Amino acid sequence: MSSSASATTEFLLSPLTGAIRALAMDAVQKANSGHPGMPMGMAEIAEVLWRRHLKHNPANPQWPDRDRFVLSNGHGSMLLYSLLHLTGYDVSIDDLKNFRQLHSKTPGHPEVGYTPGIETTTGPLGQGISNAVGLALAEKILAAEFNKPGHAVVDHYTYTFLGDGCLMEGVSHEACSLAGTLGLGKLIAFYDDNGISIDGHVEGWFTDDTPKRFEAYGWQVIPNVDGHNASAIEAALLQAQAEGNKPTLICCKTKIGMGSPNKADSHDVHGAPLGDAEIAATRAAIGWNHAPFEVPADVYAAWDGKKKGQAAEAQWNERFAAYAAAFPAEAAEFQRRMAGKLPANWQQVVDAYIADTAAKAENIATRKASQNAIAALVPNLPEVVGGSADLAGSNLTLWKAAKGVTRKDGGNYVYYGVREFGMTAIANGLALHGGLIPYTATFLVFSDYARNAIRMAALMKQRQIMVYTHDSIGLGEDGPTHQPVEHVPSLRLIPNLDVWRPADSTETAVAWANAVERHDGPSVLALSRQNLPNVTAGISAETIRRGGYVLSEAKGEAQVVLIATGSEIKLALDAQKALGEEGIAARVVSMPCVEAFERQDEAYRQQVLGSVPRRVAIEAAHTGLWHKYVGRCGAVVSIDHFGESAPAGKLFELFGFTVANVVKTVKEVLQ
Amino acid sequence: MSSSASATTEFLLSPLTGAIRALAMDAVQKANSGHPGMPMGMAEIAEVLWRRHLKHNPANPQWPDRDRFVLSNGHGSMLLYSLLHLTGYDVSIDDLKNFRQLHSKTPGHPEVGYTPGIETTTGPLGQGISNAVGLALAEKILAAEFNKPGHAVVDHYTYTFLGDGCLMEGVSHEACSLAGTLGLGKLIAFYDDNGISIDGHVEGWFTDDTPKRFEAYGWQVIPNVDGHNASAIEAALLQAQAEGNKPTLICCKTKIGMGSPNKADSHDVHGAPLGDAEIAATRAAIGWNHAPFEVPADVYAAWDGKKKGQAAEAQWNERFAAYAAAFPAEAAEFQRRMAGKLPANWQQVVDAYIADTAAKAENIATRKASQNAIAALVPNLPEVVGGSADLAGSNLTLWKAAKGVTRKDGGNYVYYGVREFGMTAIANGLALHGGLIPYTATFLVFSDYARNAIRMAALMKQRQIMVYTHDSIGLGEDGPTHQPVEHVPSLRLIPNLDVWRPADSTETAVAWANAVERHDGPSVLALSRQNLPNVTAGISAETIRRGGYVLSEAKGEAQVVLIATGSEIKLALDAQKALGEEGIAARVVSMPCVEAFERQDEAYRQQVLGSVPRRVAIEAAHTGLWHKYVGRCGAVVSIDHFGESAPAGKLFELFGFTVANVVKTVKEVLQ
Repeated sequence: MSSSASATTEFLLSPLTGAIRALAMDAVQKANSGHPGMPMGMAEIAEVLWRRHLKHNPANPQWPDRDRFVLSNGHGSMLLYSLLHLTGYDVSIDDLKNFRQLHSKTPGHPEVGYTPGIETTTGPLGQGISNAVGLALAEKILAAEFNKPGHAVVDHYTYTFLGDGCLMEGVSHEACSLAGTLGLGKLIAFYDDNGISIDGHVEGWFTDDTPKRFEAYGWQVIPNVDGHNASAIEAALLQAQAEGNKPTLICCKTKIGMGSPNKADSHDVHGAPLGDAEIAATRAAIGWNHAPFEVPADVYAAWDGKKKGQAAEAQWNERFAAYAAAFPAEAAEFQRRMAGKLPANWQQVVDAYIADTAAKAENIATRKASQNAIAALVPNLPEVVGGSADLAGSNLTLWKAAKGVTRKDGGNYVYYGVREFGMTAIANGLALHGGLIPYTATFLVFSDYARNAIRMAALMKQRQIMVYTHDSIGLGEDGPTHQPVEHVPSLRLIPNLDVWRPADSTETAVAWANAVERHDGPSVLALSRQNLPNVTAGISAETIRRGGYVLSEAKGEAQVVLIATGSEIKLALDAQKALGEEGIAARVVSMPCVEAFERQDEAYRQQVLGSVPRRVAIEAAHTGLWHKYVGRCGAVVSIDHFGESAPAGKLFELFGFTVANVVKTVKEVLQ
Repeated sequence: MSSSASATTEFLLSPLTGAIRALAMDAVQKANSGHPGMPMGMAEIAEVLWRRHLKHNPANPQWPDRDRFVLSNGHGSMLLYSLLHLTGYDVSIDDLKNFRQLHSKTPGHPEVGYTPGIETTTGPLGQGISNAVGLALAEKILAAEFNKPGHAVVDHYTYTFLGDGCLMEGVSHEACSLAGTLGLGKLIAFYDDNGISIDGHVEGWFTDDTPKRFEAYGWQVIPNVDGHNASAIEAALLQAQAEGNKPTLICCKTKIGMGSPNKADSHDVHGAPLGDAEIAATRAAIGWNHAPFEVPADVYAAWDGKKKGQAAEAQWNERFAAYAAAFPAEAAEFQRRMAGKLPANWQQVVDAYIADTAAKAENIATRKASQNAIAALVPNLPEVVGGSADLAGSNLTLWKAAKGVTRKDGGNYVYYGVREFGMTAIANGLALHGGLIPYTATFLVFSDYARNAIRMAALMKQRQIMVYTHDSIGLGEDGPTHQPVEHVPSLRLIPNLDVWRPADSTETAVAWANAVERHDGPSVLALSRQNLPNVTAGISAETIRRGGYVLSEAKGEAQVVLIATGSEIKLALDAQKALGEEGIAARVVSMPCVEAFERQDEAYRQQVLGSVPRRVAIEAAHTGLWHKYVGRCGAVVSIDHFGESAPAGKLFELFGFTVANVVKTVKEVLQ
C-alpha cells in the first residue's frame, strides 16, 4: 500500500464516498437482497473516475463519443446506480429505493436498455471485461475509419471495474490476451483486488500473480495501488491515459465492505445486507449522519456531472460540425452508422443478390453460400466487422476486401484466435458500441464454448450474426467431438435468438439478409460443410423470410406433411417422390427458421402445416422441439445420441437419414 | 534454440521418429482426411516421452499406477495411434489403415473406450490439459489417502501435449491457474510451440509471453527447448520430474509438419493430407524408404514397450502385495475404488437415508435437501470429491467432514474458484482416473459456461454429479442474467446425460442415489433456491427412481394429466384440487427425470401417462420437449422468454405459474 493510514481515514470520511457507501448499504438493506461489499470497497475508485475523469453527459447517455464504462463485477450494481443517480442521470432516489423490484430501473444486475447510462448487461463474470475489450476495439476501428487529421471525432476511453471472479474466469484470459495483441491503448481496467470471493479469502484457490499475467499479455500494469487513496488512484489513472499503445490494468488493493467496522474484509459483506446494527455502526465510522436515501444538497452539487457533461458534448458537437463541413459524406455515414440504420441502397442490394443467387442455383455447401453472401453484401455494408475463432478457411468468413485489425491499424475483420467465448463477448461489445455489425464464426459444436455470450447477445437484444458451420454429422470424419447433435435445437431454446438452418444457397442468402436487418437481436446461421443441391427454384425471398413455407406441394390431397431443414430438405423431397410412387401424397415444408415461422400469424402457419393430421419432421439433430409440430401421432427422424467418426455418407445411412427410413416412418405414422 | 542444425538433422533421420512421421502422413493420406502436421512436429518429443520415460504396460492399459498421457491437441490423433501401435498396444497396422473409418479403433479424434491406451477423449481444445489437471489432482488425492510410509502404491505422472489452440482457450487459464495453486508437481505439459494455428502464423492473434503467463500461475517453466532435439527434450523432462511441488510447462520450439520439405512450418500441413508428391519428398528427406504402413522389425523392436511395461507392473504388483499385507483394509478399499464399485453397504445406507428423509418430510429447498444427502451419504462414500465454483454457501456443497485439497495435502473437496468450465473438465479427469466420484456445483444458469465439458462427460460416459442450484426464476432478485429459462430443457438435449429436477427432499435423495449409482454417465441435479413443501408421502424410492410416476391419482376417471417437475409440483397439486372443485378430474404426474422415465418400458410409461387424451405440462422453464408428451392438443405452462429482477413470488405470478392460470389452461385444452 502506498498511502498512510491517516490518508485512508481522510478519504474514508469524505461525504463524496460516504454517499455511495450509504446508498449501497441502504438500498440492499431495503431490498433485503444484493451486494453491498463491492460498492463500499470501490467507492474511492469510483469517485476518482466518475466525478473527475469520465467523459459523459448524464443528460444524453447516447452521445456517441462518451467514454464507455463497464461494471464487469456486475453484482455491485448499487455502485453504478448510485453513480448514475449522483451524477445526474434519469435515475431518481425513488428508483434506488426500488432496487431489485419488478420493472424498476434498478434490477439486481445492471441491464442495458433498462437504465440510462448502462452500457452493457453484466453479472455473468468475465463477460463485462470482454464486452469492454469489444467497446475499446470498436473505438479503435471507428477511429481508424472516420478520424481525419485534425478531426478526432471518435476519441474516447473504455473503463471497466473487475474483480477476482472476472479474473478467474477463462473468458478474461481470451479477451485480455487479444486486447494485448491488438494494443487497445484506450482500455483501462481497475482491478478490485480485495482478496475475497464468495467462498472466502481467495488464497486457497486463486494465487495468480495477476500483474505478471497481464504483463504476459502485453498490458501496462500498475500494481499495488491503494484503492482507498484517491490521490494514488488518480496518479494511476493519469499514467494509464498516458499509455497509448497498451491496455492498462490498475491493480487496486481494497477492502471489501470498507467502512463497515465489523464486516469489512470478510465475505459476509459480499452478497447480503449488513443489517441495521452494522449499518448504524458504518454510518458512525464513515461520518455519514443522514437518514437512508437522504443526500445533502452540497454532496449532490459536488457530484453533479450535468454541466461538465453538457460542455463536453457541446465541444464535441462543435468538432463534429467542423468535421461535417470538411467531410460531409463521412459525417453523414458516421451518423447513419451510429443510429444503427442500414444504407439507403440496402434493399436494392440485397434483393439483387438474392435474385442473382436464385438464378445461379448453385449446388454448393451453405458455408460457401454464406461466404458468397458476405462477398456480395459486405462491400455495401461498411459497418460489418467479420471474424472467426481461428477457422476462417473452414467457416469461410473471409472475403476479398477483408482487412484484419492489427496492433497498428483498424480493419473490418478480426482474427480472434481460438477463443470462441471471448470472441462472442467481444463482438457483443462491438455491437453495443454502435456503428458496427459484428459477425463471428466457429464450428457449430463449439457454440457450446460461447453459449452464455450468445445468451447475453439475445438478452441484450444485440445484432450479432453467428456463422456456425459444420452443422451436423455431415462433417464426417472428425467424429462425435466435432459433430453437433443437440446444438441446433438447444440454440432454438435461447429466447430472442433466431436460428437459421438454410437448405441451399438461396435460403442462405435470405438468412443473411434477415440477420443483417434484425436490429433487436442476434441470429445464428447453422451451415453445412458438405455441398447441398439447390432446391428452392420458384420460391420467393419473401416466402423464405417467413421462416417456414410449403416448398413442394403434395400431388393431390396431402396425407402427410414432411417438415425438414437444411441438408435434410433434399432427403424430404426424395422421400416425397418415393412416397408418391407408392400412392402416398406428401407435402414438403422447409423450415429454415422456426423463430421466424412462429412470428407469422396463425392463419399462415395453419396454411403451411395444413389440416393434415399426420406429420413427420426430419432433421439431422436431436428430436428437440419438433413434437410441437408433429404431435404425439407424428414422428421425428432425428439423432438422439452422439455421432461417430466416419465419412459423412456412411453416417447419414447408419443413422437412418435415408429415403427408405423416411418412407418407413411415414407409413408407420399413417397406420 | 539450444541445438545445432546438425543435431536436428541427426534426429530427423532417426527411424524411430521416421516411423511416426510415415504412419501419420500415410494414414491421413489413405483416409483423405486428418491432421499430419502435429504428429510430424512432435515426433521427437513423443519418442523421448513414450519410448524412454512413460511408465505404462501396453498389455494392461488398466494398470492403476500407469502414468497418464493426454493428447490435448487431439486433432493430432495419428501421433497417439502410432505410439500405441509401435509400443505394443492392441492397435494393429490394420487399425491404422482404418483411420477415421466407421467403428474403427482409430476415430478422427482420440476417444476413450474405443482404443486401448486412450485416457480421455480430446479434440475440443483446452479440455485435454484440463482433464490432465484432473488426472494429476486425482493422483494427489489418492496418494494422500492411500500411501503409507514405505508404501507408495499411488505414484505416477500425468503428461500432456498441448498446442497454441489449447493455450488460447480460456479453460486452459482456469485449469492451469488452479493446478499452480494446488502445486500439482507430477503434472508435466509439453507445449508444441510451432507458431501456427489454422488461420496461419499466430503473431496476428496470439502474442502471449506464455512462459511468463505460466510463471504467474506458479508453474515451473522450461522455456525455449528445441523440440526436435531429443537430448534437449530429455534434459527438460528430467528437470520437470525433479520438481515435486509445481507443475511444469516445457516449451518446445517445433516446426509443424517437420520433415516435409515444402509444407513444414506452414498451416497447409495442419489439417489436410500432404499429397503423394510431398509424401515422397518427405520420405526422401527423413530417410524412410519403406512402403506405406510398413515398419521394419528392428524399428518395432526398438519401440516395443511390452517387456519394460510388464516388468514395471510386476514390480508395482510386488509393492502392492507388500502394502496389502501391511494394510489389508486399505488395499481392499483401493481395489474396490479403482474397480468403480460402490461400498458393500451402499444399498443399506442409501435405503435407510431415503426412508429417513421420507419420514422427516421436511419443507426445505431442494439445494438444502441435496446438502443433507451429501452429509448422509458421503461419509460412507470416501471416493466422493466435492466442489463448487466459488458458491459453496449458495450451492450448499459442504458437509461437516469436507476437507479442502490444499497445496500441501489431499482432501475430499476442491475449492474450484470461479471456474465453471475448468471445474467440470477437471472433474472429468478425476472420474477418468478411477478411484473417485466427483461432484461439482454452480448456479444452473452458469452451466452454460461449462457446457462442452458437460457434453464431454456424457460422451465419455463418466460419472460426474453436477449440482446446479437456483434452478429457475424462483431465485428472484438476481434477475435474468442469473435466472435459467432454457437450461433444464437444453441439458435434456445432451445425449447420455440424466437431468433430475426433484420436487422435494425425498425426490432429491433418490436423485442423489441414482446419480451415484449411475456408472456410465453424468447426472445433473437441478435444485431450487427456495423452500419447497414435501409432496411425496407414500411414494416409494423405487417409484421415484423410474423418473416419472403418478404422484396423485384423479378422483374418478382422469380427464386431464398434469405433468410437472420440481417447484411446479406443488402448483400442479393445488391446480388438481381447484379443478376437482369444478368437477374436472386431473391426475398429477411427477417427472423428476425424463431420461429415466424414457428408459422404462412402454407399458409402464403408458400406465403413467394413461390413455387420457388431454395433457398439460407445467415447468418454470422453456417449453422445450414437453410437446412430446402433451402433443398438439395439449398445452405447456412454461416461460419462453427471459426473466426479470424481482422477488420470486412476484415473478411466478407475473409469468403465469398460478393455480388460476393452470386451471384456465386446462379448460382451454379440454374444450
